[in-house]
Amino acid sequence: MILVMNVGATNEEIQKTAQQIETWGHTTNIARGDIQTVIGIIGDKSDLLGKPLAALPGVMKVLEVSSSYKRVSRQFHPKDTIVDVNGVKLGGGHKCVIAGPCSVDTEEYTLQIAKAVKKAGATMLRGGAFKPRTSPYAFQGHGEDGLKILDTARKETGLPIVTELMSLDQVDVVYKYADVIQIGARNMQNFNLLKEIGKLGKPVILKNGIASKAEEHLMSAEYIMAGGLNDVILCLRGVRTYENAFRNCLDVALVTYLQKESHLPVIVDSSHSVGKREYVMPVAYAGMAIGADGLILEVHPNPSCALSDGEQALLPRDFEYLMENLKKITPWNQREWKELDKKPL
Amino acid sequence: MILVMNVGATNEEIQKTAQQIETWGHTTNIARGDIQTVIGIIGDKSDLLGKPLAALPGVMKVLEVSSSYKRVSRQFHPKDTIVDVNGVKLGGGHKCVIAGPCSVDTEEYTLQIAKAVKKAGATMLRGGAFKPRTSPYAFQGHGEDGLKILDTARKETGLPIVTELMSLDQVDVVYKYADVIQIGARNMQNFNLLKEIGKLGKPVILKNGIASKAEEHLMSAEYIMAGGLNDVILCLRGVRTYENAFRNCLDVALVTYLQKESHLPVIVDSSHSVGKREYVMPVAYAGMAIGADGLILEVHPNPSCALSDGEQALLPRDFEYLMENLKKITPWNQREWKELDKKPL
Amino acid sequence: MILVMNVGATNEEIQKTAQQIETWGHTTNIARGDIQTVIGIIGDKSDLLGKPLAALPGVMKVLEVSSSYKRVSRQFHPKDTIVDVNGVKLGGGHKCVIAGPCSVDTEEYTLQIAKAVKKAGATMLRGGAFKPRTSPYAFQGHGEDGLKILDTARKETGLPIVTELMSLDQVDVVYKYADVIQIGARNMQNFNLLKEIGKLGKPVILKNGIASKAEEHLMSAEYIMAGGLNDVILCLRGVRTYENAFRNCLDVALVTYLQKESHLPVIVDSSHSVGKREYVMPVAYAGMAIGADGLILEVHPNPSCALSDGEQALLPRDFEYLMENLKKITPWNQREWKELDKKPL
Amino acid sequence: MILVMNVGATNEEIQKTAQQIETWGHTTNIARGDIQTVIGIIGDKSDLLGKPLAALPGVMKVLEVSSSYKRVSRQFHPKDTIVDVNGVKLGGGHKCVIAGPCSVDTEEYTLQIAKAVKKAGATMLRGGAFKPRTSPYAFQGHGEDGLKILDTARKETGLPIVTELMSLDQVDVVYKYADVIQIGARNMQNFNLLKEIGKLGKPVILKNGIASKAEEHLMSAEYIMAGGLNDVILCLRGVRTYENAFRNCLDVALVTYLQKESHLPVIVDSSHSVGKREYVMPVAYAGMAIGADGLILEVHPNPSCALSDGEQALLPRDFEYLMENLKKITPWNQREWKELDKKPL
Repeated sequence: MILVMNVGATNEEIQKTAQQIETWGHTTNIARGDIQTVIGIIGDKSDLLGKPLAALPGVMKVLEVSSSYKRVSRQFHPKDTIVDVNGVKLGGGHKCVIAGPCSVDTEEYTLQIAKAVKKAGATMLRGGAFKPRTSPYAFQGHGEDGLKILDTARKETGLPIVTELMSLDQVDVVYKYADVIQIGARNMQNFNLLKEIGKLGKPVILKNGIASKAEEHLMSAEYIMAGGLNDVILCLRGVRTYENAFRNCLDVALVTYLQKESHLPVIVDSSHSVGKREYVMPVAYAGMAIGADGLILEVHPNPSCALSDGEQALLPRDFEYLMENLKKITPWNQREWKELDKKPL
Repeated sequence: MILVMNVGATNEEIQKTAQQIETWGHTTNIARGDIQTVIGIIGDKSDLLGKPLAALPGVMKVLEVSSSYKRVSRQFHPKDTIVDVNGVKLGGGHKCVIAGPCSVDTEEYTLQIAKAVKKAGATMLRGGAFKPRTSPYAFQGHGEDGLKILDTARKETGLPIVTELMSLDQVDVVYKYADVIQIGARNMQNFNLLKEIGKLGKPVILKNGIASKAEEHLMSAEYIMAGGLNDVILCLRGVRTYENAFRNCLDVALVTYLQKESHLPVIVDSSHSVGKREYVMPVAYAGMAIGADGLILEVHPNPSCALSDGEQALLPRDFEYLMENLKKITPWNQREWKELDKKPL
Repeated sequence: MILVMNVGATNEEIQKTAQQIETWGHTTNIARGDIQTVIGIIGDKSDLLGKPLAALPGVMKVLEVSSSYKRVSRQFHPKDTIVDVNGVKLGGGHKCVIAGPCSVDTEEYTLQIAKAVKKAGATMLRGGAFKPRTSPYAFQGHGEDGLKILDTARKETGLPIVTELMSLDQVDVVYKYADVIQIGARNMQNFNLLKEIGKLGKPVILKNGIASKAEEHLMSAEYIMAGGLNDVILCLRGVRTYENAFRNCLDVALVTYLQKESHLPVIVDSSHSVGKREYVMPVAYAGMAIGADGLILEVHPNPSCALSDGEQALLPRDFEYLMENLKKITPWNQREWKELDKKPL
Repeated sequence: MILVMNVGATNEEIQKTAQQIETWGHTTNIARGDIQTVIGIIGDKSDLLGKPLAALPGVMKVLEVSSSYKRVSRQFHPKDTIVDVNGVKLGGGHKCVIAGPCSVDTEEYTLQIAKAVKKAGATMLRGGAFKPRTSPYAFQGHGEDGLKILDTARKETGLPIVTELMSLDQVDVVYKYADVIQIGARNMQNFNLLKEIGKLGKPVILKNGIASKAEEHLMSAEYIMAGGLNDVILCLRGVRTYENAFRNCLDVALVTYLQKESHLPVIVDSSHSVGKREYVMPVAYAGMAIGADGLILEVHPNPSCALSDGEQALLPRDFEYLMENLKKITPWNQREWKELDKKPL
């Protein structure tokens, strides 16, 4: 970390600030420029987190040198993490497509969808039993009844179940049925929930927040991993901007960024990124082309009857068309280029 | 609500869509334009929430006419809500200043701050015992020990206690000590938590989310009020943008907007809005000038020792200077202008 | 267009507003709901642009039904526009890669780059002679001398020249040398410049603005086409958000959106989108996978000597690797899916 | 400036990078941390602008220590700039209110408005003769005829004239009539225009860009001042965010920020910030409370006939009410607090 001192910071301020940092067990490096002095702090920054560095005497701003995450970092764990869900692998070259309804509705629909996506090549089934809704008057999910329907679908198709956990009081019931726990955008910084699931044993899909930065997404994964869990899957679902062509804005280059910064698998939620059926497929396609480890998306045979998010559901035949086309993609080979990049010019 | 049909939507699509809406119990009004047809939906929209209107045949987009909130709306409750906390009133002309440390640290500091802010004119004491932190390695608050220190400070000064509740599992302990429950930005859409506190009896300060829209802030207040609680205080703490001069970006005009849309009191968190001590006072001053019902801000006698957010803490003497100056402000009189506006030109 | 009236708007206000609109030559459709009245305006909205609809008596807000562009719209011109630059085609299935240095520097470097990109398969050469720079103290481009160097490169390689026009006073000199005129992000709403180039004969690449919405990008293309020019190429270079992993944020789904809304070719500027060499290739790859009509990107053999934007320049061997890989891509086939989508379920 | 090297950057990379910087005439300070090495660059950074520092071998990122502006900086010019327009002063304690129609329409309306705002206390008259409009089909301004009407209004009232200059080809005609040149949001980074007006003699109001950062706003003012002109007035009109309650989002704390960073006067455009008549007054009031040097706002006696932006125009009687109320404000005294802040605790 680097402290940039105010223009005109006094010697006394510089000394006091450096001493304080040394009191906290760090070495400092003071560089006096023509205009401003900067104080470099040497050593692991994690024990400085939460220290009010910007409030030290004469400090104008604090510049971050290194990132704050460790367990999620590829630097400390160079090999790709491979998550294994009942034999279905994800990461390290294993691609995965998670499909299903937004909300679980009737058993009939759910089974119909589960069979259709299985047939088209999906490797896991998604479906929400507890739904976060902006309005208290909107449908909030079927709860445990929905989870039981998913259980039936798992038995019929063999597909592992991905479902959302919204709250600490749902932990018991959701862990009873789910194979993979999904943490939604609104809970990306629900730190108590993250701590709790980090202590439990099932893989977690962590979506980025409504307006999160990539670094915060990784820090939230760090919260989970700090509890002991290794099987975290990062999921990109876009963020909020001023553009209103789509529900959210997905920067597909973040797939590559997260894969470079972290060893965790990265999947793309193409349904929530765009929010409209006709754009879900192209963006899924682009996501796999850039090298995502998988997709999560919504399928419903009768979108105008879906209990939530019908406007972004693919029809089963759309999904089939997409799966057929995904076979044609050769993903961008970041690793091969990296090797090539090391050769002398 | 209004459905805008695709250019070239067929008669069949228009009929099917209108019929579906009528099935859901609403009257429709079909207007055929030169280019596009629009279908107006007449009646209370709340039972259409969650229906996939955009997935109906031929629908291009859905336009919202009226807002989705009711209990928070001034339309249904024209009189200002006045929240009474142990005799300290807030709203309807009653102004309130809530001050204290970001995190509760030692009893000594906390008492010193409590006495100083009381003397300068604060009407409530704030302090965090449970802290949401981006990093799992940063200080997470003193928990119940912190709440006990706040309790002591309340006894010494008579100031009611405002403290943050982060999670369902903290409800019992926080409700045991707090007079007012604070819900932070990261929890603005933690719907399960909102539902729970709406059933309990204490007033709630609801901060806006990290990147929320005003309408979502109001919808989250609606979640709380739907549980039965009337004493909700809206708090503006700014949102995330690309500007990096400040921690967040506070649009002070939202004070007026929220007061017009809702009957609930609106306060300004000037500490988190700007994130730097020297800007906290001017923005607090502007917030009261535009007519906010109160302020919430952070005070610490030794910011470089504060356990969190020291860089945005006011010194006690800053706070005194601010309080002295707030007396000079005549807030913008929205109501008087409204009356004047009704007179014929 | 639809006018939503205030809750409690009087009959007199509704009548006055409707009458005013009829005075302007439009038919109205008044729908009275339980809570609010809406007035639909029937007919071509273009002659209402600039009318202060929201200032009419009792109007709460104005909702847009249809878009404001015509010449750029696929609705009025269903066939893809194909731009022909000295025999190099772009759009309607013709893919194109425009490569070269950010700024033209020496003749030697420029020729070396031109030959390298030609050899690897680029179809046009880019290079800036006039550079928009945030600081007045940064390098501003070589001006006409730079254009002459590009002219030499064109003669040597046969590649058409793409170069930026920043200002009305550069029109003569830039049109003397360029084959394609590039309008940069900061000039997307320099309306006088857009009007002027719309009257001249050369194809134009129009980049989106620093924080533009897709609709504004299209409206700026409309400005150019309103002058008579048909050969406009839309270029996506990302927009500003709060994410700081990259220089900008490119929503790759906008490629599909613009191609659906408009008949104009759409290309991706992968260099400016990400701003860092190692991400330029993956995002270019994703852009072509989703179906962009082409790419524009920066190549320099010695990035640390480039006069501007060296950090985002590809090495010639990177560019070669990318071009080789682009051959492996089967772009997403939007059209085929559209046909499939028309079949009965 | 500080270069943060990659984790694992080799000694050779570190040496090469340091040498290159020394070749450019700067001293370096190398600090080797446990994880990463940082290279500090000592000396005036302005001659490094445009150098591709991030492309040097092994460099991960570049951190800015000091700002890039000089002439606009308070550091180099501690005293407030006072702009004098025909005897009307602005800055250094001189407050100013600029009012008038958005677009100049008829002479009759313009004179009526000019007299009304003069009577209520405005110190200058604004009005647009050239209008930047998103659509090519919207009203584009009356051009020189509009300027002549403003000239008549100036003769009748004595108020100096503020009007927008959009383009290099309008320089002659606008400078013939205007007392103060307004540069709009879309032209904040039209660098050729900024350079040109920096060489001419009249004061300039520079609005911030649609999505500019404060530092870029200051850099654009630097462009003008680099040409020799000292009389630059910074104007805040809000930026684009995802909030749709208002036209733009004005962070009123930027008034204080700009006044601290720069010696130039800062005014608030309360009309464009909010875009709706009823919010224009409260935000103007807050702007003056925080200490802005002035306001610019739109007034029209018949908003529904205004040629542009009628929905944000104040009625003359609103303006009168506002001016009367502005007298009640004691602006936040930043300077007094600064003095107090220097006293020992």
